Amino acid sequence: MSIIIKNGEIVTASQRYFADIYCENEQITRIEKNIEAPNDAIVIDATGKYVFPGFVDPHVHIYLPFMGTFGKDTYETGSKAALIGGTTCFIDFCIPNRGEEPLSALKTWNEQSEGKAACDYTYHMAVTGFDDQVEEQLKKIVSQYGISSFKIFLAYKGALGVTDDELYHTLRLAKELGVITTAHCENPDLIVELQKKYISEGKTGPEWHYHTRPEIVEAEGTGHLMTFAEILDAHVYVVHLSCQEALNEVMRAKKRGVNVWAETLIQFLLLDKSYAERPDFEGAKYVMSPSLKKKRHQNVMWNGLKNGFLSTVATDHAPFDFETQKPMGKDDFTQIPNGIPAIEDRINLLFTYGVKEEWIDLQTFVNSASTQAAKLFGLFPRKGTIQVGSDADLVVYDPEYEGTLSVKTQHMNVDYSGFEGWTIKGRPHVVTVRGEVVVREGTFVGTEGRGQFLKRLPNHF
Amino acid sequence: MSIIIKNGEIVTASQRYFADIYCENEQITRIEKNIEAPNDAIVIDATGKYVFPGFVDPHVHIYLPFMGTFGKDTYETGSKAALIGGTTCFIDFCIPNRGEEPLSALKTWNEQSEGKAACDYTYHMAVTGFDDQVEEQLKKIVSQYGISSFKIFLAYKGALGVTDDELYHTLRLAKELGVITTAHCENPDLIVELQKKYISEGKTGPEWHYHTRPEIVEAEGTGHLMTFAEILDAHVYVVHLSCQEALNEVMRAKKRGVNVWAETLIQFLLLDKSYAERPDFEGAKYVMSPSLKKKRHQNVMWNGLKNGFLSTVATDHAPFDFETQKPMGKDDFTQIPNGIPAIEDRINLLFTYGVKEEWIDLQTFVNSASTQAAKLFGLFPRKGTIQVGSDADLVVYDPEYEGTLSVKTQHMNVDYSGFEGWTIKGRPHVVTVRGEVVVREGTFVGTEGRGQFLKRLPNHF
Amino acid sequence: MSIIIKNGEIVTASQRYFADIYCENEQITRIEKNIEAPNDAIVIDATGKYVFPGFVDPHVHIYLPFMGTFGKDTYETGSKAALIGGTTCFIDFCIPNRGEEPLSALKTWNEQSEGKAACDYTYHMAVTGFDDQVEEQLKKIVSQYGISSFKIFLAYKGALGVTDDELYHTLRLAKELGVITTAHCENPDLIVELQKKYISEGKTGPEWHYHTRPEIVEAEGTGHLMTFAEILDAHVYVVHLSCQEALNEVMRAKKRGVNVWAETLIQFLLLDKSYAERPDFEGAKYVMSPSLKKKRHQNVMWNGLKNGFLSTVATDHAPFDFETQKPMGKDDFTQIPNGIPAIEDRINLLFTYGVKEEWIDLQTFVNSASTQAAKLFGLFPRKGTIQVGSDADLVVYDPEYEGTLSVKTQHMNVDYSGFEGWTIKGRPHVVTVRGEVVVREGTFVGTEGRGQFLKRLPNHF
Amino acid sequence: MSIIIKNGEIVTASQRYFADIYCENEQITRIEKNIEAPNDAIVIDATGKYVFPGFVDPHVHIYLPFMGTFGKDTYETGSKAALIGGTTCFIDFCIPNRGEEPLSALKTWNEQSEGKAACDYTYHMAVTGFDDQVEEQLKKIVSQYGISSFKIFLAYKGALGVTDDELYHTLRLAKELGVITTAHCENPDLIVELQKKYISEGKTGPEWHYHTRPEIVEAEGTGHLMTFAEILDAHVYVVHLSCQEALNEVMRAKKRGVNVWAETLIQFLLLDKSYAERPDFEGAKYVMSPSLKKKRHQNVMWNGLKNGFLSTVATDHAPFDFETQKPMGKDDFTQIPNGIPAIEDRINLLFTYGVKEEWIDLQTFVNSASTQAAKLFGLFPRKGTIQVGSDADLVVYDPEYEGTLSVKTQHMNVDYSGFEGWTIKGRPHVVTVRGEVVVREGTFVGTEGRGQFLKRLPNHF
Repeated sequence: MSIIIKNGEIVTASQRYFADIYCENEQITRIEKNIEAPNDAIVIDATGKYVFPGFVDPHVHIYLPFMGTFGKDTYETGSKAALIGGTTCFIDFCIPNRGEEPLSALKTWNEQSEGKAACDYTYHMAVTGFDDQVEEQLKKIVSQYGISSFKIFLAYKGALGVTDDELYHTLRLAKELGVITTAHCENPDLIVELQKKYISEGKTGPEWHYHTRPEIVEAEGTGHLMTFAEILDAHVYVVHLSCQEALNEVMRAKKRGVNVWAETLIQFLLLDKSYAERPDFEGAKYVMSPSLKKKRHQNVMWNGLKNGFLSTVATDHAPFDFETQKPMGKDDFTQIPNGIPAIEDRINLLFTYGVKEEWIDLQTFVNSASTQAAKLFGLFPRKGTIQVGSDADLVVYDPEYEGTLSVKTQHMNVDYSGFEGWTIKGRPHVVTVRGEVVVREGTFVGTEGRGQFLKRLPNHF
Repeated sequence: MSIIIKNGEIVTASQRYFADIYCENEQITRIEKNIEAPNDAIVIDATGKYVFPGFVDPHVHIYLPFMGTFGKDTYETGSKAALIGGTTCFIDFCIPNRGEEPLSALKTWNEQSEGKAACDYTYHMAVTGFDDQVEEQLKKIVSQYGISSFKIFLAYKGALGVTDDELYHTLRLAKELGVITTAHCENPDLIVELQKKYISEGKTGPEWHYHTRPEIVEAEGTGHLMTFAEILDAHVYVVHLSCQEALNEVMRAKKRGVNVWAETLIQFLLLDKSYAERPDFEGAKYVMSPSLKKKRHQNVMWNGLKNGFLSTVATDHAPFDFETQKPMGKDDFTQIPNGIPAIEDRINLLFTYGVKEEWIDLQTFVNSASTQAAKLFGLFPRKGTIQVGSDADLVVYDPEYEGTLSVKTQHMNVDYSGFEGWTIKGRPHVVTVRGEVVVREGTFVGTEGRGQFLKRLPNHF
Repeated sequence: MSIIIKNGEIVTASQRYFADIYCENEQITRIEKNIEAPNDAIVIDATGKYVFPGFVDPHVHIYLPFMGTFGKDTYETGSKAALIGGTTCFIDFCIPNRGEEPLSALKTWNEQSEGKAACDYTYHMAVTGFDDQVEEQLKKIVSQYGISSFKIFLAYKGALGVTDDELYHTLRLAKELGVITTAHCENPDLIVELQKKYISEGKTGPEWHYHTRPEIVEAEGTGHLMTFAEILDAHVYVVHLSCQEALNEVMRAKKRGVNVWAETLIQFLLLDKSYAERPDFEGAKYVMSPSLKKKRHQNVMWNGLKNGFLSTVATDHAPFDFETQKPMGKDDFTQIPNGIPAIEDRINLLFTYGVKEEWIDLQTFVNSASTQAAKLFGLFPRKGTIQVGSDADLVVYDPEYEGTLSVKTQHMNVDYSGFEGWTIKGRPHVVTVRGEVVVREGTFVGTEGRGQFLKRLPNHF
Repeated sequence: MSIIIKNGEIVTASQRYFADIYCENEQITRIEKNIEAPNDAIVIDATGKYVFPGFVDPHVHIYLPFMGTFGKDTYETGSKAALIGGTTCFIDFCIPNRGEEPLSALKTWNEQSEGKAACDYTYHMAVTGFDDQVEEQLKKIVSQYGISSFKIFLAYKGALGVTDDELYHTLRLAKELGVITTAHCENPDLIVELQKKYISEGKTGPEWHYHTRPEIVEAEGTGHLMTFAEILDAHVYVVHLSCQEALNEVMRAKKRGVNVWAETLIQFLLLDKSYAERPDFEGAKYVMSPSLKKKRHQNVMWNGLKNGFLSTVATDHAPFDFETQKPMGKDDFTQIPNGIPAIEDRINLLFTYGVKEEWIDLQTFVNSASTQAAKLFGLFPRKGTIQVGSDADLVVYDPEYEGTLSVKTQHMNVDYSGFEGWTIKGRPHVVTVRGEVVVREGTFVGTEGRGQFLKRLPNHF
C-alpha cells in the first residue's frame, strides 16, 4: 500500500515548495511535481494545505505515577490525542523512584507502553540517584536499549532531585557516552523553604504556587546547570524554560561556548500566572512547575524562539483531573498534582498564535516543533523532516480551519482544558504515521497499538 | 537535456539523506531513490560525495572602482572563480558616488555585468546620500528593477558614508518598502582621526591599519545601527562582523527584539591581525575593513556561527594586485586598496576548518553559506536549498579531496592569495547552474555569460 | 569675627560625630568637643541638628539666554534661593553660541555674575565648536581663568551640539590639559527626526516631548561618549542621566576601565513622564531634556545612587515662567523652554525622599550632594567637606522641620514650582558661607554679592 | 597622658588636610591647626607624613586549628605584626566544628584571645550548621556577646560548609537580627569532584590546586549567594573575591538591588596562579582558597576597587610554615594547609602598588583598607576614621620609606614570606592604639595584651 500526498505546499525547517510526496513501505520514497498515482495508492489531496513533517513533542508524561495517583492518559489515549493534534512522535520520561534501579523503572514503563501507542515514542531516562550500579545500568540502557538522553531534576530535593555530586557524575557519564542530559532547573531548597514559609503563613491556595517558584529560582537552577555543563563539557538541554532570567543564563552560557539548548512550553508562550490566581480553586488547573510566570515574559519567549535562542516548543503534558485529582492540594497548594495538559493542542496553538500572529515564520514553526527535537534526541532524519528515506510521518495541515478548544471536544483523557474557549486557526487535515493514515479531520482512523519504541544512538560527542 | 545526480548524500540546511536528484528545464523536478536515467540525461555519479545546494555569497565586489583603479576581477573572471569554488550565486554592491543618482550607478553596474557572468547574481543597492530624488529612484529600483536590499556605510565619512539623518531616512524608507538594509558598521570619525594621528606620527605601514579600526570602533558602529533599527523597527543586516564586541551589540539588540542578522567573513574566522603585520609590506595583502582583529575573536566567531548568533559567512571579495595596486598605500596605509580576495576559497575553507574541525555541523555549513543568504535576500526558495522546483544549482562535493591553496592555481584574477599554502580538505567535484554542468574538478566547463540577474521581491515587512 | 557651631552632629561623606566647629577668617580652624566661645563669636546652637558641609550643585543654569528670552533667575536671585536650600556653591555653564569665541562668552557670563552672587560659584566651559582658535582660547581659559571642566552637547545638532570630530578633539584637548569633560548625551539626529515626525502628525503637546527623547536615545548618546572616552583615555562626566539604559552604558564602560562618572538629577529621582502629560498645557512645566522617563527608572536611579554607580545629584536648574515663557511652545512642544527649577529644593527633597525613606544613608547623601561634585570639579577640599582649613561653608540642618514646597513660598524667581505641594521633612536651620551666616530658617540674612568666582586647577590627569 | 600629632597631612575616606590632632583618654578630642602641646603630652612630628586612621583587616585567621595543626600566629604575635604593618584592628573568625555549639566555639576563641592581643579585635561568628539550638545561641551571641556578623562557607562540603537549607535559615536569621553575613563563595561539590579527578590522575602538586577551583567555581558560588540574599532581602558580604567572573555576579546583583558588598585580598591584587606553579613544592606557599587566578584578573580587581565595586581589601591571613606544615600536602595538594600570610604587609603593599602606581587615590586607599570595613561591621565611627570622639587609632605614615619585604625581617610568626623580595615604598612611622604609641618605625613599643574585644551592634536592618 502506498500513499500520495498531492498538490500540497511542503514546509520543512529550511524549505517551502509545492510538490507531491510518494510514500511506500512506511517511508517517503519520492518527491516530484505531479506524481501519477498507481491504482492501489491512497491519494490525499493537499490542495490549499501545508504538508509538514510529523511533529515531535520532546517532553510529555504519559505514564505518570504521582503521590499514589496517576496521570489520566495512557499510551492509548495519549497517543491518539497527540496524533489528532499533529504530534506523531513523543518522548516520555522513564523515572525511577529514588533508590530504584533504572532497569526496573524501564521495565515498568515498557509494560505501560508496549503495544499500546498509536504513534512512535521513546523515553528520556531519568537519573534520580547515582552509584556504580546505576552507572552500569545506564551504560546498558544507552548501548542496548537505545535510549540516548538522560533527565535530571535539580528541583524535588530528597525525592527525584539529584545532589550536586550526582549531577556531576551524571554529566560526566553522559559526556563519556555521547548522551545529552535534559534538566529541570530550579533550586530545590529555595522552593522547599518558601513552601514551608507560605504554608505556615496560611497561604495555601494555588495562587501561592508562583511565589514559591519565582523567576529567580529558575534562573538559579539554570545557571547552576550551565556551570556544571561547562566544567564537564557536557551537552545539556534545559526543559520547560519559562522566563527571561533563566533565558539570560542560557544565553550567557552559549556565549561562553557551553553546548546548551533550551526548550520552552506552549503554556509559557500563551499563559501567565494570572491563570493560577483564578478563584474557587480553578487556579489549580494551572499549577505546574516551573510555575506560570508574569505576563512580561511571553514576548521574551516568542522573541527567543524567533531568534533561535530557544530551540524547541514542548508541552510537559501531565493530565490530572480537576474534579478528583487536583483537589489533593485543596488545602495545600504543594499537594496539587502538577501539569497543564496540552499534547493535543500544542501544534494548533503554536500555528495560530505563533505563525498567524507573525512571531515566527513557517520554517521556524516546523523547526521548533519537530526538527530540532528530532535532531537533538537522535531521531533525525527518521523523524523531523520530509525527505526521501524518512518515515512517512506527515501532517497535511489546513490553515483555513477555525475552531475552539474545549474539554467537550478534546481527546486527552482529562476533565478540563487549560485552553477552554481558545480559538485555533488551523488543524491537521490528515496525519500519517509510517505510511498509514491515522487521522482525518480530527478523528483517529489508524491502527491502535501500531506505534513503535524508537531506538536511538548517542549523538552528542 | 536533463541531469541526474545519483547516489549522493543530499545535505540541506535541515536535512541529510541519500537519494537521486533529477533536473530538467533548469530546475530540480524529482527526488527519489534510484532514479532511472533516460538516454539523453547527463548522469553524475555522486557516490561518496555530498550534494549541497549551490552556495550563495551575499557580499562580494566584482565591479569595484576604487580611487582611480579597479578591483581586478570582472563578471567573467569573478563568476568563474566563484563557480569553481562552489558559489553559484553572489550579490555585488551597486554603489553610487556621493551625489550620483542611484539609477545612474545601476546603469553602470549593469553595463559591467550584463551577459558577462557565468553564474547568477544580483546587487545590493548602496545608499550613499538621501534626498527626495534618491527616495523616488530607490522606490523604482525596488519595485521595477527587482533589487530588494539596501547597503549603507556608517564608515567612510564624507565619501560613501551616510550621516545620521540619512541613516534615519534610509531605514525609514526600507521599512516602508519591506527592504532589508545591510550596513558597514564602524564609526567614521574615530577612524579618520586615528588615521590622522598615526600618519602624523610616522606610523604609515599596514600594521597600523588595525589601530585605526580597533574592536571598539566596530562595536560603536554596530550599536549605533541597532539603535536606529530599533527606533524605526527596520530590518537590518550587519555585514562583515569581525569581533566579540560587535557581536555583543548584535546580541543585545536581538534580545530587545530588534530584527537584525549578522554576517561574518571567512577571513575573520581564519585570519588575525598578525597577518597584516607581516614585514616588507606583505601585510598590505591583509588590509581590509573592518581590519583583521586579535586572534581571540576567532573562537567567538566560530561559536557565534554554531549557535546561530551569526547568520551567514561571506567574503567581501575585493581583489587588488599586490604588485601594482596595494602599493598605492606604500607610504600611507590609508591609501592601500582594501580587500582580501576569497570568492573562490570560501566554501572549501569553511568546510575544511569549520566542518572537519567540528566547529559546525553540515546543516549549519549549508545554512550559513547558502540558505540563510538566500532567505534573507529574497532568493529563496529559488536558491539556497535542494527541493523540487528550485533552480538546479547543485554542488557535488568531494570531502576526500586534499589540496593546497595558491595563487598559482587559483582562478581569481589577482596576483596573490591571502591563503597561500593553506590546506583544503574537500572541494566541488561537479557544480551545476540551472541544470547545466559548469564545473568539473576545478575546471570551468560551462557557458560563459549564461548567468542571470536575479530579480527579487521585498520580503522584510 | 568668628563662628562656633555647638553641639551638632557633624556628618561628612565618611564621618558622623558630635563636636563643635570653630570658624575664623572664613575657614574652619578647629574641631573639638565643647569649644568655649570667645566674647565676639557668633554661637550657633546645633543641638538636635546635623552639621553638613555646604552643598554643591554641579549643574545649574543661572544666566541662561534661550531663543530670545532668558531664564528668570539672576545671580542675585538664584544664589539666594540656592543658599536658602542649603546649596552654598554651584557651577553654571558658560556657553558660547556656535561660532562665538569662548573668551567672548566668558566675558558675557562674567558680566552677569561678578559682584552679584551671594554664594561662591564657577562655570563649566561649554565647547560648541572646535578649531585652532578655540583650542588656544580653551587652553588660556584653563590655565589663566581657572576653569578646569568642559561641557559638550551631543544633542542640539547644528546649534550647541558638537560633531564627532569636534567631540574627538575636545576630549583630546581635555586629556592633554587634565580637564574633565561633562556631556549631555543624547543622539541629536534621532531627536530631530522624531520631532519632525510627531509635529508633522499633529502631535504638538508637551506629552510628546518624551517620545522624541525615549530611553534609547539617551543610551545611544551615552554609549557614544563612552567609546570616545575610551579611545582617548579622557575623563568624562555624564550629566543628568535619567534612565536604566543609559546607566547600563556607564556601567559597561566602568567595567572596561573608562574614567567616567555620572550625575542624576533630583527630578529624575522623583518625577516621571506622567507629569509632562498633565492636561491644559500644565505638562509644559515638566518639559526638560533629557525628558522625564517612565516610573520604573526611579528605583534604578536610587539603587544606582546607593551603590555609587551614580556619583552626584544635581538640578539642571533652568527657570522659565509658566505664564509667559513656556507658552512659546504652546503649539509646538519643541519650542517650550526646557527646565524644571529646583536649585532651592534639591537638598530638602533628597533628604526627605532619599535619607528618610532609607534609600541612602547620611554619608551617601553628603557625598552625592556635595563632596563628589567638589572632588570631581577641583573644588575639594576647599568645598565639599568639614575639615580644618576648608571654607566655613556649613549647613546646620534641622531634620525635624516639616513643610510644604510651593511657588508661594519659594525664592527662585519663577512663577511655578515643579514640586508644588510636596512635603519636605528637613531644611537648613542656619547656612554659612565662608564664615558668614547667610541664612536663618528660610530667610536670607547674608551680604549680597559677597560670592566669589572659584578658580580651579585641572585635576584629571 | 595625651598625644599630639603635629604637622601631618590627615587623610580619611573623604578628606585630606593639614592639621594637628590631639588625643586624650584614648580618643581623638580636638583637631586644629597648631595645637599647643601641654607639658605632659607626647608630641609626634608628622611633618612630611600622612596621618591615616588605623587600618582594619576584616578577614584574618589568628587562632586557626586545621587538620590537627594550627596556624602559627597567636593573638600575641599576630596582633604585633598587624600593628607594625599599620593594622590596628582585625576581625578573626570564630568557627565551630560541624556539630559543635556556637557558644562552645566562642569560649575556645575567647580563651585564645583574652588578654593576649596588642590591638583591638573581634570575630565573625561562623555558622557551620543550623538547628533550633544554633539559632538560639546565635541570637544570644548577637545580643549579649556583641558579635554582629556571621560567616558561612559555601565551600568545604561536609565539614564547615552549609547546605542550601542551612544557608537559607542563616540568612533568614541574619535578616531578622540585622546582622550581615559574610560568605566564602565556591561551589563545594565541583571542588571535591575535581580534586578526586586530578588526584586520581596523579596530578598531586600545588600547581593543580587552581584547576580544582577555577574562576567558574567561584562565580557559581557567588551567584548562588546572590540568589539567596535576594530572596531573603539579607545583607551579605562576599569574602576574598578573586576574579572577574565572580565580580560580575556581584555586579549583576547590585544592579538588581541586592544588598551586597565584596572584599578582595591584597594577594589577589598582586599575585597570580603562576606563583603556585613554582617548582620544588615552593608553589605550596601560594596555595590558598579561592586559588590564585590568572593574571588577567588583577586589572579587573584594581579597576573594581577604583570604582567602588569592591568595598574592602583584606588578607585572609593564615600562616602555616613552609618547612613543617605545608608538606602535609606534599603528595596531595588537597592536604596543603591553605593560606598566604599577609597581615603585616597589606597596607604597605596596597600603598605601594595601589596608591603610588595610581590605581587608587588616597581616599579610596583609606576607605577600602579601613573605613568600609569599620562601617560594614559595626565598628564605625569608633574605628575607621579620624574625627573627634573616635578611638585614637592612628597611623603616621611615611611615604618616603623604601624597604624590602622578607621573612628575615617580618614579625609574623611564619617561616616564609609570600612577598619575599618585594619592594615597599612607604610604611608606618608611628602607630597608636587608643592613645598609646605602639609602634615606632617598625618596632613594637606598646603594651602587650592591651587590645580589647570590640562589642558591636547589629547595623544591617
